[in-house]
Amino acid sequence: GYSQLPRQVHGLAGAPEWPAIAAMLPDVTDRRVVDLGCGFGWASRYLREAGARSVLGLDVSQNMIARARADTDDAAIDYRIADLETLELPGGAFDFAFSALTFHYIRDFDRLVRTIHGALTPGAHFVFTIEHPVFMAAMRPRWLPDEDGHKTWPVNCYAMEGERRTDWFARGVLKYHRTMATTLNALIGRGFALREIREFAPTEAQIAQMPELAEELERPMMLLVSAQR
Amino acid sequence: GYSQLPRQVHGLAGAPEWPAIAAMLPDVTDRRVVDLGCGFGWASRYLREAGARSVLGLDVSQNMIARARADTDDAAIDYRIADLETLELPGGAFDFAFSALTFHYIRDFDRLVRTIHGALTPGAHFVFTIEHPVFMAAMRPRWLPDEDGHKTWPVNCYAMEGERRTDWFARGVLKYHRTMATTLNALIGRGFALREIREFAPTEAQIAQMPELAEELERPMMLLVSAQR
Repeated sequence: GYSQLPRQVHGLAGAPEWPAIAAMLPDVTDRRVVDLGCGFGWASRYLREAGARSVLGLDVSQNMIARARADTDDAAIDYRIADLETLELPGGAFDFAFSALTFHYIRDFDRLVRTIHGALTPGAHFVFTIEHPVFMAAMRPRWLPDEDGHKTWPVNCYAMEGERRTDWFARGVLKYHRTMATTLNALIGRGFALREIREFAPTEAQIAQMPELAEELERPMMLLVSAQR
Repeated sequence: GYSQLPRQVHGLAGAPEWPAIAAMLPDVTDRRVVDLGCGFGWASRYLREAGARSVLGLDVSQNMIARARADTDDAAIDYRIADLETLELPGGAFDFAFSALTFHYIRDFDRLVRTIHGALTPGAHFVFTIEHPVFMAAMRPRWLPDEDGHKTWPVNCYAMEGERRTDWFARGVLKYHRTMATTLNALIGRGFALREIREFAPTEAQIAQMPELAEELERPMMLLVSAQR
């Protein structure tokens, strides 16, 4: 199941996109951080080790929060069960917001962006990753047979936003497809300045070490966004 | 050939994305405008009719500039032959920069963005369209046979930027694929604020009038960007 994924077992070392994310992070020294969709708490602990004053880790999964608590020995990290669809946060209580691979499970992204904007101090950064819209769009996403020596990823229904169900690990996991434009405009419209966009692609060194990563050059699987309030 | 395309014959009325572009345009009243890759001059004339004080229309094609001049009776529009790869513009000479479906032919986008930024006054807007990176990425771009009732667009080589040759009208037309991230970061890095992103999709009314447009819901063909200096 999901908890056996390399990124769950090995944490950040099992997530090939982590070096790219780390390069986008602001200096978090003495910052109050919120980690939205913290899972087992890998990023929450990383951010504390990087100097954050405190981290609030939020996740809808009771199991994940229990495991995060069990794996963490740090009084400055507070893990709480929370549904990001209905989340309320105190105004101006955080200096940095982080989220990894969570927002594509959220139906009402506009509401969440408004909540995050209100919870951040002026000038605060907001860095998040999601499954890339190109990866999510198709009704039946999977590699197509090689052509011209390249694996090919199918795109359809790109402009048709809304529910996508995949049988990835659990049957019928529900995700929400939004276009790149919708995602970025939600941030701009709420008053965030976009600072950097990345579409994760493995480095040559990563591919040398893990050849199966080469297919990630063919299609963008993950979108990384850095914005500033 | 290319000059027989609906958008060349009928101008803006033959370009289904035009209403979306028009909705992104700032008020150009009394603005000095540069139109990069003006072609037959359709947008240059539109912008003058919308109130621009002057328009400088630039295109690398001698034939297009000749036709633009022949079709224009307006002393405030100046058409010139210019290669955008080596373009130089006077500093702060323009209040609005526009470009339609041109930049994907440009090898050195960073240089051009720097030139445009320098030529604009502070606060000036910059609106452009390009072929969407998802549309351009694949080595052999074409619709794949229907699956699940949807036409499917193949994506591969997305992270491999650089030359793409297609036999569209002329044999071996040379284009340059850049990822969405590279395109947007070039603007942000040069000091532009991103104001709005659109990925053209036809409206229901447009599809009712022209059913073949429905396939544009399946994959993004065109990227529209509004930025501000």
